[in-house]
Amino acid sequence: MTKRPVITLLTDFGTKDSYVGIMKGVISGINPNANIIDLCHEIGPQDVFGGAYVLYSSYKFFPEGTIHVAVVDPGVGTERKIICVKTRDYLFLAPDNGILSLVLTDEKPQLITEVTNQKYFLPEISNTFHGRDIFAPVAAHLSKGTNPLKLGKELTKFKEIELPVPNHSKQGVLKGEVIYIDVFGNLITNIKQDVFLKLVGAIHELPLPEDVFIVAGKKRIRGISRSYADAPVGEAVAIFGSSGYLEISVNLGNAHNVLGLKKGDTVIVSYKI
Amino acid sequence: MTKRPVITLLTDFGTKDSYVGIMKGVISGINPNANIIDLCHEIGPQDVFGGAYVLYSSYKFFPEGTIHVAVVDPGVGTERKIICVKTRDYLFLAPDNGILSLVLTDEKPQLITEVTNQKYFLPEISNTFHGRDIFAPVAAHLSKGTNPLKLGKELTKFKEIELPVPNHSKQGVLKGEVIYIDVFGNLITNIKQDVFLKLVGAIHELPLPEDVFIVAGKKRIRGISRSYADAPVGEAVAIFGSSGYLEISVNLGNAHNVLGLKKGDTVIVSYKI
Amino acid sequence: MTKRPVITLLTDFGTKDSYVGIMKGVISGINPNANIIDLCHEIGPQDVFGGAYVLYSSYKFFPEGTIHVAVVDPGVGTERKIICVKTRDYLFLAPDNGILSLVLTDEKPQLITEVTNQKYFLPEISNTFHGRDIFAPVAAHLSKGTNPLKLGKELTKFKEIELPVPNHSKQGVLKGEVIYIDVFGNLITNIKQDVFLKLVGAIHELPLPEDVFIVAGKKRIRGISRSYADAPVGEAVAIFGSSGYLEISVNLGNAHNVLGLKKGDTVIVSYKI
Repeated sequence: MTKRPVITLLTDFGTKDSYVGIMKGVISGINPNANIIDLCHEIGPQDVFGGAYVLYSSYKFFPEGTIHVAVVDPGVGTERKIICVKTRDYLFLAPDNGILSLVLTDEKPQLITEVTNQKYFLPEISNTFHGRDIFAPVAAHLSKGTNPLKLGKELTKFKEIELPVPNHSKQGVLKGEVIYIDVFGNLITNIKQDVFLKLVGAIHELPLPEDVFIVAGKKRIRGISRSYADAPVGEAVAIFGSSGYLEISVNLGNAHNVLGLKKGDTVIVSYKI
Repeated sequence: MTKRPVITLLTDFGTKDSYVGIMKGVISGINPNANIIDLCHEIGPQDVFGGAYVLYSSYKFFPEGTIHVAVVDPGVGTERKIICVKTRDYLFLAPDNGILSLVLTDEKPQLITEVTNQKYFLPEISNTFHGRDIFAPVAAHLSKGTNPLKLGKELTKFKEIELPVPNHSKQGVLKGEVIYIDVFGNLITNIKQDVFLKLVGAIHELPLPEDVFIVAGKKRIRGISRSYADAPVGEAVAIFGSSGYLEISVNLGNAHNVLGLKKGDTVIVSYKI
Repeated sequence: MTKRPVITLLTDFGTKDSYVGIMKGVISGINPNANIIDLCHEIGPQDVFGGAYVLYSSYKFFPEGTIHVAVVDPGVGTERKIICVKTRDYLFLAPDNGILSLVLTDEKPQLITEVTNQKYFLPEISNTFHGRDIFAPVAAHLSKGTNPLKLGKELTKFKEIELPVPNHSKQGVLKGEVIYIDVFGNLITNIKQDVFLKLVGAIHELPLPEDVFIVAGKKRIRGISRSYADAPVGEAVAIFGSSGYLEISVNLGNAHNVLGLKKGDTVIVSYKI
């Protein structure tokens, strides 16, 4: 444990209310030295997949030992489990509703426990705000070195959600979909850079522009670019974004508005082998 | 004083501008060790009651010694006072416009001072941004141990705003109103859990579902539930929420949108004794 | 270097995504003691001037040694430079696109370096998220005491953007414009308090109300006020705001909505000498 252990908070609580502030109050009361970082609080209400994606695209940029807390929890107050997952570098604390599915495709769980030990909860537990009553105090105790094994019994599995994977129906055509749209209107697809590069027989190099075509809605894009500015202002580019996924963007514009695509819409990549 | 004293900030400044960031800069310049926590900055512009409610539902989840700063201040630059209120566990710093009314129904003031001592202000005081020029530096000095008595002369009272209280016109009928709507669309009423349970002769136990009916707009709800999921998806529930007040919610939905109720609208609870 | 050096973040990333959280993760990994303060993340997408204004109106309220990081960066991934500017009290880290123009009218650069030394970057550099890959790690290293000279070669100039300056076409008439609108709807003009007071031959004193008229859209305002409440509720006032610029506000209202003025619109001040 470092002296200022990092706790990240990912929720669908928004910032209109004081829910996130209250969680920080609870954490600070238990561990005044915790370094609490807001990962994101604008996940769509109860959008478990959205939370899974944002966590996945973010978690590995945090220092070793970080405790990632993800509270997108439509089942709060029901029988759904809360789990703590230890991987080599991190601890994850979340409802067992699949929000860790994407992270745990890359990270190997070393230990999964069900969080039931009320010793680490607030004295009174509401049925509607476990972020405050359970997640915050448990995260704070973990940040002080509490062993996850003390939180409850060990589990051998966790709930997984079905992840949209690109469809590789035939050689030379990959059919993906938009899985996330960021604030700039960038359309992030489920086509991963490393998977795609392997398909086209490359490792680090992008294929030549004339060898790849992307169809996104009514737009046909030639080649994969290296930066937004590879296209004229207002024009669409396909680019492997900072998330490691293929993104459709518009140079100095908003691809979501310009192309009219939304979450779930198809993006087709045709390539020469 | 702990080594990292907590200062919370509650304002109507929003996050579009840098007003909150500037307050943190001023605080950090005076006390680099302050642990500054955003309670909420999305209080409606100049909505003193909204600020009072959010502060009330949040303050007690913070560690002893926390300095709660509330700047919803329509009278900034006029003759309105700024007050510092010490209670057993906390310090509150706010304009004397009633924003502390709700908190001070539960917390007993041990000391109230009028904040006038310019020694603890920034050297130049604007007429429009006392958050930066007065509240932030005074909070920072308090967090370093400055005695509230040094801020100005002692007061014996503070301004109170009229709080909407439920109307108990006859046995078996309690007429409340919506006082706050959170980001999930939960309709929070002014009917407190402990007050209601005393009325129905219970202490910790909820009355049986068949013994209570709630009318919220055109919706009639049977019984008080323990969790959102007690109702089918999309259906309304009445529940004592994490705030300690009766809330009308919709399971996996937005009660504000579904029921069309707004702040100030009536919610009637009929109960068997 | 203090023990908890302050790093401020100003971006156009918004809060919908985890981009800002990721930057904080990177910083905390390199310097766990950094005191990271959000200055503002709601700059309009790629609005360099908006970023320049917000930084200018904020930076000097932070403690000496603060590292101000400004990432409004439409040219990310192109040949645009990233610069580090050292002034007497601060370090600024930003793309060389003019976002420091306003600050550097007041602050004298002691050293400007081009940020090119990959030793201080993340190991892998994307073409779309230099906030994470370059700005965050470089700021963290600076906060640990890295000399700006180590970041890259010294520069003698930086890019300046044309700043809208008030037009003083004839004695007694000053023609300014709205340069920023804050969340309260206050219309901030480019007419600086000190410049104006010098024009009217005053130093600290405002001119008499009968000696000044302001025309803002269809509204004619008499005199410059000291506080919003100098006008009746709902009426417009002209006031030198906390930013040091002339602002048009509405007492307990929203001047932007009431007067229908937008960024770039003219505000004329006529004064007696």
